Amino acid sequence: MQRYFLDSVVNKDRIGIVKEQYHHMIRVMRMKVGQCVYLVEPNRRAFLAEITEIEDDVVWLTYIADDDRQVELPVDVTIACGLPKGDKLEFIAQKATELGVHSILPVETSWSVVKWEMKKQDKKIQRLQKIAQEAAEQSHRHYVPTIYPMMSFKQLINHLNDYTHVIVAYEESAKQSEMSQLKKIYTSLKPNDRLLAIFGSEGGLSPDEITLLEKAGATLCGLGPRIMRAETAPLYLLSSLSYALELGGN
Amino acid sequence: MQRYFLDSVVNKDRIGIVKEQYHHMIRVMRMKVGQCVYLVEPNRRAFLAEITEIEDDVVWLTYIADDDRQVELPVDVTIACGLPKGDKLEFIAQKATELGVHSILPVETSWSVVKWEMKKQDKKIQRLQKIAQEAAEQSHRHYVPTIYPMMSFKQLINHLNDYTHVIVAYEESAKQSEMSQLKKIYTSLKPNDRLLAIFGSEGGLSPDEITLLEKAGATLCGLGPRIMRAETAPLYLLSSLSYALELGGN
Repeated sequence: MQRYFLDSVVNKDRIGIVKEQYHHMIRVMRMKVGQCVYLVEPNRRAFLAEITEIEDDVVWLTYIADDDRQVELPVDVTIACGLPKGDKLEFIAQKATELGVHSILPVETSWSVVKWEMKKQDKKIQRLQKIAQEAAEQSHRHYVPTIYPMMSFKQLINHLNDYTHVIVAYEESAKQSEMSQLKKIYTSLKPNDRLLAIFGSEGGLSPDEITLLEKAGATLCGLGPRIMRAETAPLYLLSSLSYALELGGN
Repeated sequence: MQRYFLDSVVNKDRIGIVKEQYHHMIRVMRMKVGQCVYLVEPNRRAFLAEITEIEDDVVWLTYIADDDRQVELPVDVTIACGLPKGDKLEFIAQKATELGVHSILPVETSWSVVKWEMKKQDKKIQRLQKIAQEAAEQSHRHYVPTIYPMMSFKQLINHLNDYTHVIVAYEESAKQSEMSQLKKIYTSLKPNDRLLAIFGSEGGLSPDEITLLEKAGATLCGLGPRIMRAETAPLYLLSSLSYALELGGN
């Protein structure tokens, strides 16, 4: 069933949908009175609603029932990643959304060969946000992940205190067969904790960056014994976290 | 360091590399006498080898040391998937290889809208095999996953006995909040077990196919509460299995 994310909490007796979402419901999906959709409020509450009236520029719906399935990860996971090449960040935005990410934070790292021009940044973030929105609808999320504006590495370091846990996916840890940190972190998580997971771009993070992160209290984690591409490692993290916290894996 | 998969077990005192791999080492990578590479035998044994002599059409190497890191999943996982649209099977071949898959089995399912022409099948499989080979080199695997020729659904059912465990990723299980089967299966796995994980294409598997699989003893599993795309679900499975078996998650 179609799913629409609302900008605000609504009066559930009579909900008016306008503009783009009106266009999508009535012109694209050709919905009629009596059909139902899921509406999702910004507070992550979703409910079933029925179309009661269609006007020229607004469609009216009324509340039918709550959708109280727990579809969001019990902790908020932010993926911070060095700017990867090509369309890999778009790939990450789509797949990480399917896998339950809370937000994505592009970071300028010293070994990334990609630079974002200042004037094109807003457009890039908007595009990533749109990809996340569509993926959130498709995967029946109750929350559209936030794509943050790009940060410098220094800004990232200054933001670490916003999170209850900070981990760094570190290829050298994988090579040195470091296999226990990830489970330790997952086991220590409590509901509503905020986990920041930091990933390098194709070249990884530099030794200086790793040192700064460690000094700031981040935990270096291996993600298993195989070397993954930059865009695959965040998916491993989110999948394993879901298994640990949602499927009783821990 | 560069990694080459050998066709056969070799005499380690004097190993001759010819043809494509010769071309790659000497013409593409411009390697010199004294440089080292990893060589991997078909029995999943890898070792460091040094170039001792370069002739016009053969490069000679000698054994230096074993690479006895355990980089392969302790169980062999085969991903069987309904034919997805576009280049998604290529995506699955690359990413599943990074995540440790043993083999990939394309299956004709009733709800897949994609049909493979008979005469193009060999070429498709070859292309997927090449993608798996390159991904195996990049991710430092000791094994190149096998891409099997396409099977009909009936053939798949007849092959289930080749595996110690058969699971089906079933979207309805996710909707019904089935959250315990995957962990049960993972907990019951023993080293060298053979796990077959079956995935539908975009449309999923049909109720008839699900019934046939259940009758044949397959276990339906939910992969968490969010709906994933056809190409994302196999990555969730492999990541969560790695976490469970390689990072002490279980």
